[in-house]
Amino acid sequence: MPAAPADSALYGALFGDPETARLFSDTAEVRAMLLVEGALARVQGALGLIPAEAAAFIDRSAQEVQIDPAGLAAETGRNGVPVPALLAAFRKEAQAPGPMQYLHWGATSQDIMDTALALRLRPMLVLWEKRLDALLSRLADLAHAHAAQPMAARTYGQFATPTSFGTVVAGWGWPLLHWKAQFAAVRSAVLKVSLSGAAGTLSAMGPLGPQVRADLAAALGLADPGHSWHSDRSSVAQLAGFAAGLAGSLGKLGEDVLALSQSGLSEVRSGGGGSSTMPQKQNPVEASALVALARHVVGLAGLLQGSELHRQQRDGAAWFGEWLALPQLCLSMGRMLMLADEVVEGLRPDPDAMARLLEDGQGLIHAEALTFALAETLQRPEAAARVKALCDEARSTGATLTALAARDFPGTDWPTVLAARGMGVAEAEALNFVAQVRSAKG
Amino acid sequence: MPAAPADSALYGALFGDPETARLFSDTAEVRAMLLVEGALARVQGALGLIPAEAAAFIDRSAQEVQIDPAGLAAETGRNGVPVPALLAAFRKEAQAPGPMQYLHWGATSQDIMDTALALRLRPMLVLWEKRLDALLSRLADLAHAHAAQPMAARTYGQFATPTSFGTVVAGWGWPLLHWKAQFAAVRSAVLKVSLSGAAGTLSAMGPLGPQVRADLAAALGLADPGHSWHSDRSSVAQLAGFAAGLAGSLGKLGEDVLALSQSGLSEVRSGGGGSSTMPQKQNPVEASALVALARHVVGLAGLLQGSELHRQQRDGAAWFGEWLALPQLCLSMGRMLMLADEVVEGLRPDPDAMARLLEDGQGLIHAEALTFALAETLQRPEAAARVKALCDEARSTGATLTALAARDFPGTDWPTVLAARGMGVAEAEALNFVAQVRSAKG
Amino acid sequence: MPAAPADSALYGALFGDPETARLFSDTAEVRAMLLVEGALARVQGALGLIPAEAAAFIDRSAQEVQIDPAGLAAETGRNGVPVPALLAAFRKEAQAPGPMQYLHWGATSQDIMDTALALRLRPMLVLWEKRLDALLSRLADLAHAHAAQPMAARTYGQFATPTSFGTVVAGWGWPLLHWKAQFAAVRSAVLKVSLSGAAGTLSAMGPLGPQVRADLAAALGLADPGHSWHSDRSSVAQLAGFAAGLAGSLGKLGEDVLALSQSGLSEVRSGGGGSSTMPQKQNPVEASALVALARHVVGLAGLLQGSELHRQQRDGAAWFGEWLALPQLCLSMGRMLMLADEVVEGLRPDPDAMARLLEDGQGLIHAEALTFALAETLQRPEAAARVKALCDEARSTGATLTALAARDFPGTDWPTVLAARGMGVAEAEALNFVAQVRSAKG
Amino acid sequence: MPAAPADSALYGALFGDPETARLFSDTAEVRAMLLVEGALARVQGALGLIPAEAAAFIDRSAQEVQIDPAGLAAETGRNGVPVPALLAAFRKEAQAPGPMQYLHWGATSQDIMDTALALRLRPMLVLWEKRLDALLSRLADLAHAHAAQPMAARTYGQFATPTSFGTVVAGWGWPLLHWKAQFAAVRSAVLKVSLSGAAGTLSAMGPLGPQVRADLAAALGLADPGHSWHSDRSSVAQLAGFAAGLAGSLGKLGEDVLALSQSGLSEVRSGGGGSSTMPQKQNPVEASALVALARHVVGLAGLLQGSELHRQQRDGAAWFGEWLALPQLCLSMGRMLMLADEVVEGLRPDPDAMARLLEDGQGLIHAEALTFALAETLQRPEAAARVKALCDEARSTGATLTALAARDFPGTDWPTVLAARGMGVAEAEALNFVAQVRSAKG
Repeated sequence: MPAAPADSALYGALFGDPETARLFSDTAEVRAMLLVEGALARVQGALGLIPAEAAAFIDRSAQEVQIDPAGLAAETGRNGVPVPALLAAFRKEAQAPGPMQYLHWGATSQDIMDTALALRLRPMLVLWEKRLDALLSRLADLAHAHAAQPMAARTYGQFATPTSFGTVVAGWGWPLLHWKAQFAAVRSAVLKVSLSGAAGTLSAMGPLGPQVRADLAAALGLADPGHSWHSDRSSVAQLAGFAAGLAGSLGKLGEDVLALSQSGLSEVRSGGGGSSTMPQKQNPVEASALVALARHVVGLAGLLQGSELHRQQRDGAAWFGEWLALPQLCLSMGRMLMLADEVVEGLRPDPDAMARLLEDGQGLIHAEALTFALAETLQRPEAAARVKALCDEARSTGATLTALAARDFPGTDWPTVLAARGMGVAEAEALNFVAQVRSAKG
Repeated sequence: MPAAPADSALYGALFGDPETARLFSDTAEVRAMLLVEGALARVQGALGLIPAEAAAFIDRSAQEVQIDPAGLAAETGRNGVPVPALLAAFRKEAQAPGPMQYLHWGATSQDIMDTALALRLRPMLVLWEKRLDALLSRLADLAHAHAAQPMAARTYGQFATPTSFGTVVAGWGWPLLHWKAQFAAVRSAVLKVSLSGAAGTLSAMGPLGPQVRADLAAALGLADPGHSWHSDRSSVAQLAGFAAGLAGSLGKLGEDVLALSQSGLSEVRSGGGGSSTMPQKQNPVEASALVALARHVVGLAGLLQGSELHRQQRDGAAWFGEWLALPQLCLSMGRMLMLADEVVEGLRPDPDAMARLLEDGQGLIHAEALTFALAETLQRPEAAARVKALCDEARSTGATLTALAARDFPGTDWPTVLAARGMGVAEAEALNFVAQVRSAKG
Repeated sequence: MPAAPADSALYGALFGDPETARLFSDTAEVRAMLLVEGALARVQGALGLIPAEAAAFIDRSAQEVQIDPAGLAAETGRNGVPVPALLAAFRKEAQAPGPMQYLHWGATSQDIMDTALALRLRPMLVLWEKRLDALLSRLADLAHAHAAQPMAARTYGQFATPTSFGTVVAGWGWPLLHWKAQFAAVRSAVLKVSLSGAAGTLSAMGPLGPQVRADLAAALGLADPGHSWHSDRSSVAQLAGFAAGLAGSLGKLGEDVLALSQSGLSEVRSGGGGSSTMPQKQNPVEASALVALARHVVGLAGLLQGSELHRQQRDGAAWFGEWLALPQLCLSMGRMLMLADEVVEGLRPDPDAMARLLEDGQGLIHAEALTFALAETLQRPEAAARVKALCDEARSTGATLTALAARDFPGTDWPTVLAARGMGVAEAEALNFVAQVRSAKG
Repeated sequence: MPAAPADSALYGALFGDPETARLFSDTAEVRAMLLVEGALARVQGALGLIPAEAAAFIDRSAQEVQIDPAGLAAETGRNGVPVPALLAAFRKEAQAPGPMQYLHWGATSQDIMDTALALRLRPMLVLWEKRLDALLSRLADLAHAHAAQPMAARTYGQFATPTSFGTVVAGWGWPLLHWKAQFAAVRSAVLKVSLSGAAGTLSAMGPLGPQVRADLAAALGLADPGHSWHSDRSSVAQLAGFAAGLAGSLGKLGEDVLALSQSGLSEVRSGGGGSSTMPQKQNPVEASALVALARHVVGLAGLLQGSELHRQQRDGAAWFGEWLALPQLCLSMGRMLMLADEVVEGLRPDPDAMARLLEDGQGLIHAEALTFALAETLQRPEAAARVKALCDEARSTGATLTALAARDFPGTDWPTVLAARGMGVAEAEALNFVAQVRSAKG
């Protein structure tokens, strides 16, 4: 258990996401910051703000130089930000004081760091969306295959009415479609350049400042916010709220799988975690991790939202707070999308178990359907009262509800009638979800 | 200090928001639930699902009946949800068992409660947006009036470079424009009908179920989600993420006002809270409350996001968790919008104090500007090193930076040059904000 | 849904705690503040700091005066704190400017408010401990009655080994004994007087200040902290951490009841919440509320812990943050203790269901016991591998594990052997818990 | 920015704590788990539960074997827990199936992991307490040196009354003394063995089970809890509450340093973080990190407290949640103690700046003292009203309060009188703190 299990050799296969982790490595951060410095020089050179040859030199060197993050550690510890150390190391490596004096011209550390972060959030959002699409496809396939498979719906853990397994699966997918539709807003919030100079006024760049920002944005494929956002962290808060919401929806899937796979119910099987002492064990490890990570992401998102209370033009305390929470939130979110896919891929529904449980409890799950059937001839409150009494009798005698219904309301084939009524729009809703996923892809 | 200060007679003027509170009163909830039941009967009657006369009777009675929330308390305590007690009380009041048997036909408690909540979130969002618009207008006016008023920008609480007070004000407003742009997404998430029956399949309504839902949505002016969202709480999570984000941005405004109004700085005056023992006191009470409420909203939002982990088709534990946090989040958010407006309205900037502080510390705030001015003739790292040495000398001797610059780099009118360089795009950025607010309104 | 469901007429029976609420009413706060002012005058009079007759007058009047909290609202909204308004109203009511000038002599609002809070936390902690004791007694009785009642233990929701219901009940109780042992530390943290004057130095009381504080503490039956704790909120954080911990342990009880009462398992029955449409429903409402409140308390505790970051000698933002969270945390905690008792009182274990589930899954729950039995003659890894293979065979063929064991390892009465091995120390551990509770009471 | 900045090469000097990190490395965890397995075998051998030679072999091998955590990763990913993979690797390395069959006899993964965690929390708590003691000593020295150094106390960021810098320092230290006194309770909660077998009943160890647990506790120097605590996480919650509380108190110190070191006030200097573009910068980086980490620890503590809602006999979702938060909480806490010490060590108070600010605002800070001085001859409400009017006049005219007092209440040397009254018990309180720290050490 190191600082974060995602980084652990021991726990990495449970909690880690190598693709996201690659974006948040020290090396990736250094590389992205250098890329921003290079692009900044290039656009400043093109605008004549710095000499063209110096710009070209910086741009080229920024792509080629190799800087060891560990070498920047001590000075980063002193300054809080790694940029001064990075610039010093870069200058030293380049051995060209003439052109290198134009490095980082008029920018400040936060410009570089926030822009470098945006460069890494971009592929991360692509990755997340790709994984979410794959998960939605898999859910659509599963919902399609089991659209009409009857099973018990539960409210408060108690049998409610019949539903279908496909509807349950669609229920996992609907919120994911909701979050998928938010990607554009998240991208619009976070994929933007930061270039505002020392304290937000671009004062060291002269009148060309805003043009430099626009050109830098274009060069890096990011949006130009048109103003400073050094201490406006609404973009990070937007990302955090999105992640918390998506995590919660994935966590719900995990909770349902844990519920359905419980011993004694076993409507689905999921996972096969072994025990150090119990040979029979097949623990739903992935679904458990999904729930744990969901709560973790929600907690980290709250820290990021709290970090929006950024004082004045730069607030080390608030900004550092982001650094402590954001990478881990991203890694956890990435891992959750992987895990959800693994869970759904490995899910083995058991129609027999579903059918058996539907009739468990003497078929009390059909009580609402029986009430509405009887309400065709009785007033509904009376029908409800009669059915409630039959339910009580069934509980105390062990008789089935249909048998008692047949006794008191003869002449109807209750099992058939109730089964016909019971599923409602379940199958249609499952297929509706399938269609929405598939049309979104088409 | 009752359960929530917003409800307190004593603290209500500090933490309360009567307009929002009205939407979350017991009476408003009962009224909204009855309105949903009435509309449900009406559309079911129009579709022939229940007799037309019964529908008309229920619809009319639902508008007229007076039901005391307190009378529903005991049964609500038993059932968790107030709907069974409400239906019983309504039936009893109506004294018409014939038509009243068709009340709540095929619906479940959560349908009624979630829809009734949507009906109250609608005016709440109107209220929030109206308040946010007013706040933005006020910020625009303030930013306009002080667009060119120089003051010190701070990073890490330390003088950084000059900026303008208008830019600082714009900095409070930019994130609010961001959140304003999210209202549509929030509305789309939460302003929808819930009608899915006992456990999500509309089973008691037969094939007409989806049509009933569509018609109910139309009748109530809400969207038809097209499926059950009983246990898909992504909409609530979206609202929570939005509120946390907006609260954070308003809290930042509060923090800045606290910082700028501190004794010994006093660049702005804000509030006039008196003390029980110190006659001189003028405490920034409103800004303090703004910060406190911001952290409170962020915390409550996390609870709502955590409640997304809703198990199976209805999860009392998760759903009750929403009830515990949502009204208070809404009231706190509403109060924050009021408070922010009060804070900005009452803000009295002190240009003299701003000017005095700009030159405090021997004008070290101009160090970056001096560096870039010198970099026209020196290599920039050398310029930076020279200026750093001058800053150290200024600190130890008490001399001003411009005096030392004049000594070492004679022939330049340093105060004028540095002042000219120092503000960068501050004024333009402030005016840009003003224009954006005003064009959004126009 | 008002600001807090605990205050709601509609939801009060689900979430409210009238006894705790009484301590946090506006009236109770005003009453407690007046009591502190009266005692302060009394001890100052006795020390000669203020005239004895004035002291007596203030003390007596503070007990008799009736002040309407609502009348203090507007001024409280301006000042943040209600004390200035309270003093003004008290002075006005008393109509005796001579003696009343000595009211609140040298104190500040926070002294009065924090001390008045301590006075109300004292009976609250008595109430909590009394409820916790009652709950522990009830758990002890339940654990005693079912100490040897076999049931399935679950890990990851999967059958693990046999245990006893009494052990499960004891498992709910052990952490409560832990938290019970922390009451003394919590009392020591929070039951103390605050008297430090305007900004912590007691400057307006002269050299007698510390003696006044000591005497006030004695007069009110609180501890004398010996120094200012205006901005040292470790005591509140201690209370918050305690409440979060206790809430978590009670929430675990709630979760277990939800798990055990699930349809299809029904090892216990709990609660009888009805549905608006499903006549068969008996929802575990109280256990659901317990879980919801547990998460709510944990969230509020985090807000209180965050409020420890109190700036300088008094920080309105941080202190107001306490007010927003503390009463609700206390009410929620009080309600949880009531609910836990209701849940345990209403719990109906079903030994038949427990026995049936123990053998469900073909008795795979005995796999560890079989392994250790076989390990008497085989090497354990081999035994484990053999048993794992038998488990797989049982799963695929539907045979029971004991039948397969009898086939492959004949000559042993496996059902008897495994049952004997299976319970381990379950009964002893349950009875150990019972003994600890009963000896603590004795 | 990797998963956690503490693990980063780049940010390690800002956020890392190598001594704590060593305890939470993968290697340390594997080593601790092996140590537990070895000790378990030893005590089981001594009790005759397993053959003595096998016990000796396992014990010795557990100390000698080298196991690469990375080799356990894949299987850990499958099982959730690393113990099955560790046992397999250990058995394979040992090449002695005879004795090795007695490895992990009757234990379960959680026994090993929780006990191995306790073994590492023990030196961590020693480390924390040592650091806290050093910090307290340093604070005592600082408080002693400046016990009588006058400065302005602030409430709501506004000048309140005079205090001394030593009192402010003592104010940072008092809560630390509070938390120091909680170490015993924390140790008692977390430094205990876990040995309960598969699902809490020690069923595979037969009647000797409880004796094995007691002996294992003795062998490892941990307490014997006397029962299973697999799903009783009150100990972790206790640690979390403690850490959150201590973090909050250290964060308060950080906030105060940020406030006092602000440009324009500069009553203390702290830190010297440089900027990439502003040569004059000396940012309070350590104090900023202290505040950021404080909020981070509070957030993580809430996750741990939420993980107390552990379902049934083991709950992967809740337990994994602990793993995600605990190591990082411990590392952050360790780092905070280091940082606080660095901050205090580097603090340079500026008596001149303190004195200058005391008189800033025309000496309005003496308003309360003037009121009480005048109250010797006027009724206090009248005195307060008169002083309030003088304060208003001072604000509008720029006159000092003492000058106005001299005008209206001649015959008193107001500056001397007010200065004498103003400090109250400040010095005594600072020295009281010093004495308490030094006597605790003595």
